Amino acid sequence: MSLVVQKYGGTSVGDAGKIKNVASRIAKRRAQGDDLVVVVSAMGKSTDQLISLAREISEQPAARELDVLLSTGEIVSSTLMVMALHEMGVEAISLSGAQAGFRTDAVHGKARILAIDPKRVHQELEQGRVVIVAGFQGITEEMDITTLGRGGSDTTAVAMAAALEAKTCEIYTDVDGIYTTDPRVEPKARKLDEISYEEMLELASVGAKIMHPRAVEVGAVYDIPILVASSFKEVPGTLIHGGVGMEQFKKVRGIAQDLDVAKLTVRGVPDRPGIAASIFEPLAEAHLSVDTIVQNASAEQLTDLTFTVSRSDLPKSLPIVEGVAKEIGAGEVVADDRLGKVSIVGTGMQSAPGYASRMFRALYDAGINIEMISTSEIRITCIIHESRVEDAVRTLHQAFELERAEPSELSAAEE
Amino acid sequence: MSLVVQKYGGTSVGDAGKIKNVASRIAKRRAQGDDLVVVVSAMGKSTDQLISLAREISEQPAARELDVLLSTGEIVSSTLMVMALHEMGVEAISLSGAQAGFRTDAVHGKARILAIDPKRVHQELEQGRVVIVAGFQGITEEMDITTLGRGGSDTTAVAMAAALEAKTCEIYTDVDGIYTTDPRVEPKARKLDEISYEEMLELASVGAKIMHPRAVEVGAVYDIPILVASSFKEVPGTLIHGGVGMEQFKKVRGIAQDLDVAKLTVRGVPDRPGIAASIFEPLAEAHLSVDTIVQNASAEQLTDLTFTVSRSDLPKSLPIVEGVAKEIGAGEVVADDRLGKVSIVGTGMQSAPGYASRMFRALYDAGINIEMISTSEIRITCIIHESRVEDAVRTLHQAFELERAEPSELSAAEE
Repeated sequence: MSLVVQKYGGTSVGDAGKIKNVASRIAKRRAQGDDLVVVVSAMGKSTDQLISLAREISEQPAARELDVLLSTGEIVSSTLMVMALHEMGVEAISLSGAQAGFRTDAVHGKARILAIDPKRVHQELEQGRVVIVAGFQGITEEMDITTLGRGGSDTTAVAMAAALEAKTCEIYTDVDGIYTTDPRVEPKARKLDEISYEEMLELASVGAKIMHPRAVEVGAVYDIPILVASSFKEVPGTLIHGGVGMEQFKKVRGIAQDLDVAKLTVRGVPDRPGIAASIFEPLAEAHLSVDTIVQNASAEQLTDLTFTVSRSDLPKSLPIVEGVAKEIGAGEVVADDRLGKVSIVGTGMQSAPGYASRMFRALYDAGINIEMISTSEIRITCIIHESRVEDAVRTLHQAFELERAEPSELSAAEE
Repeated sequence: MSLVVQKYGGTSVGDAGKIKNVASRIAKRRAQGDDLVVVVSAMGKSTDQLISLAREISEQPAARELDVLLSTGEIVSSTLMVMALHEMGVEAISLSGAQAGFRTDAVHGKARILAIDPKRVHQELEQGRVVIVAGFQGITEEMDITTLGRGGSDTTAVAMAAALEAKTCEIYTDVDGIYTTDPRVEPKARKLDEISYEEMLELASVGAKIMHPRAVEVGAVYDIPILVASSFKEVPGTLIHGGVGMEQFKKVRGIAQDLDVAKLTVRGVPDRPGIAASIFEPLAEAHLSVDTIVQNASAEQLTDLTFTVSRSDLPKSLPIVEGVAKEIGAGEVVADDRLGKVSIVGTGMQSAPGYASRMFRALYDAGINIEMISTSEIRITCIIHESRVEDAVRTLHQAFELERAEPSELSAAEE
C-alpha cells in the first residue's frame, strides 16, 4: 500500500455528474488499497464567475479580498467531492488549504508556499479516509487566506506529494498526456510516455498549456514523479520524472508554440555601458517581464536593441520605453505585436550539435522568416510572424521525425 | 464615537447593485464617526443554490461537509461588501467567522457559540477599518467550520455586539420593523417604536418571522439593544430592549400567527403514571419537537392526550405515536394538520387579569372555534382551524385596539 496524491482540474469537476464520475474513479483506486490525497480545482467556470461578480463591484478589487473570494471556489468543489464519495460508501473528508497545512507568504494573488504542515492530513489518512484538499490556496502567518495564482492547484498537488513523500503525483486533466506538439496544429503529434522535468519546463514555459512550470519545478526539486493523464478516458498518460534522457535515442522531444509575443525595437541606442540597465530597470519596476533580448551593432557607435514582452504588456511597456529612449538620446521605438514563437525542446540537444542549423534550414525551406533567435541548454526558439507559427510547428515536427515512436518507447527491454 | 454592530440580511445583499447600496449606507454611517462591525448574510438565494448543488450529489450530505459548503456563501458576500466599500474610499476588511473569533461546539448544522475571541476584530478597528464579518459560521476546537443554523447571522451579530460591548446592534432587513401583527393580514397593523426582549421572543417563536429567537435571547442575556429596521428605506425601525414595560399603558403589544401546526390525539390512554413519558420519549429520540400538550380526562380511567407538532414533522411522528399507542393499550390515533395558532403577546398581561377571557370572547363573537389553549407568562395562544387564523388576527387586533398608538409613543415627555 502506498500514498498517492491526485489532482483533478476544473473541467474534470465541472458539474455534479462529472464530480460523481471523478468520485467513482477515486473509489475504484481506493479499493485497490492506496492511500489517497486528492486536490481539486474550482468547478468549471466558477472562478471566472466569481471574478465577474467582483468586477461588477470594483475594477481593481483589493488582492486580499479577491483571494478570499476566489478561495471559496475550491472549497465548494472539495465538499461536493466528499459528498459524492460518501454516496459510494468511501470514507472521506474535505480540508481547506489552511487546514491541509499550506503556509504561504502574503503576496496575495500569487502567493508562494513557505511550508506545509500536513499533520491534519496524516491524522485523516490514519483514520482510513480519503482526504480531499481544496487546491490553489493557503494561509499566511496572520491567518489570512491567499491564492497561489496561475497553476495553483497543480502546485498544491505536487507540493503536497513532496510534503507527504508520496509515491507519485497524478494530475488528471482534459488532455491525454504530453504530446510532441499541439495535436490541433499537427494531427501527427504523438503522445509521449515519459518526459524529463527540464523538457517539460521548456515546453510549458514556451506555451504548452497543460501544466504550470511552477508545479513542474517543485516536482523536479523534490523528485516527485508526476503523471499527466485524462480524467475522462482510461488511457495511459505521460510520466514526468527525473530519469529520462540518459539513454535517449531521439534528441528533440517536442515542439512548443506561443502567440503571446510582442517586439519592441529601440533604434540608435548609444553604445556605452549601463545603457541596457537604464532601459530595463524602469520596466522591471513596473512589473513588466522582458523575454528575449537581442542587440544588433550598427554604424557610428549606435546599436539597435530589440526585446520581446507579452502582448498584454505592450500598451504599458511602450510609453515607458519611449520615455527612456528620449532620455538617453536614442532614436525611434518600433513596436510589433503580431509575432509568435516556435521552439524545439529536448534534453539530448545540449550534447549534440547541429540542431539549430537543422531548425533554421527547415524554416528557411518552408519560406518562414526568422526575426529573432533565443536558446537555452535544452531549447531553441525562433520568433517569427504570427501567421506562420502553425506552419512552422508542422514543418519542424516533420523535420525532426517526431511522429515516429522512439525505440525506447517501443520496447523497454531494448534500453 | 461609539461602536455599533450592524447586520444585513440576504435580500439586502442580493446582487451587486444592492451590495453597493448597503456599502453607501455603511460609508455614510462611518463618516458620522462610529466604529462599525458589519455582519452579512449570503447573497439572496445563494444558500439555497448551494444546497441544491449538494442535493444533486447526495440526498443526505454529511453535516460537516454541508457546513463547509454553506459557509462559503457568507464569505463571498463579505468580500464583495469590502470591495464596494473600497470603491467609496472606506477602509475595510472581511473576516470569516473563524477569523472573527467565533468558537462553537461541533454540532454541525446548528452549532452553538461557545466563546468569541474578538482580538482580530479589535486590531482591525484600531487600524480605522470597517470590519465585515461573514455571518452564520464559526469554527470548532478541531478547526472545523460549523454553521449556526436558522437565524445564524442574526445571532452572529448580536453575539458579536455582546463580545465587543457595542452600544447597539442594528439588524437591517426587508421589513421596516416589528408590527403589532402581520400587515399583510391586518392592514391596520402598526409599527412599534420599541418592544421588550420577552415580547419579541413570544412574537418570534409563535411565527413572526423577522428575527430568530436565538438572537433575541442573546440580546436579552447580554442586554444589547437591538434595532430592527429597513435596509432599503430611511425610516425609523423598532428597538428591542430591556427597559420596556415598566410604564406600559397598553398590555397587549402584538398578535402572532403560525400556520405550521399539526395536532395528534391519542384516544383512550390508560390514566396511570409514566404514560406521558412513554409517548413523548420516542418522539424526543427521533428529534421531533412537541409543542402544546393537553390532556383531557375522560370516562373509565381513560384519558385523551392531544399535542401539536410542526406540519413537516407529522409524517415522521404519526407512525411512532401509533406504535406507542398499541404498546400501551391505548385507542386510535387521530391526526389533523389543518390547524393554526393565534397568540396575543404583552409583558403587561402577567400582572393584569382578564386578557384571556377577552381573547376567548372576541373569538367566540367572531364564530371561531378554539381547539386548544396554551399560555406563558406573557402570551396566550389559541389553536384554531387554519382557515380562520387570519380572521382571528384581525378580530383580536381590533379587540385590543392595537391600531391606536400608545400614549408613551406619542410623547416621550408624558412618561
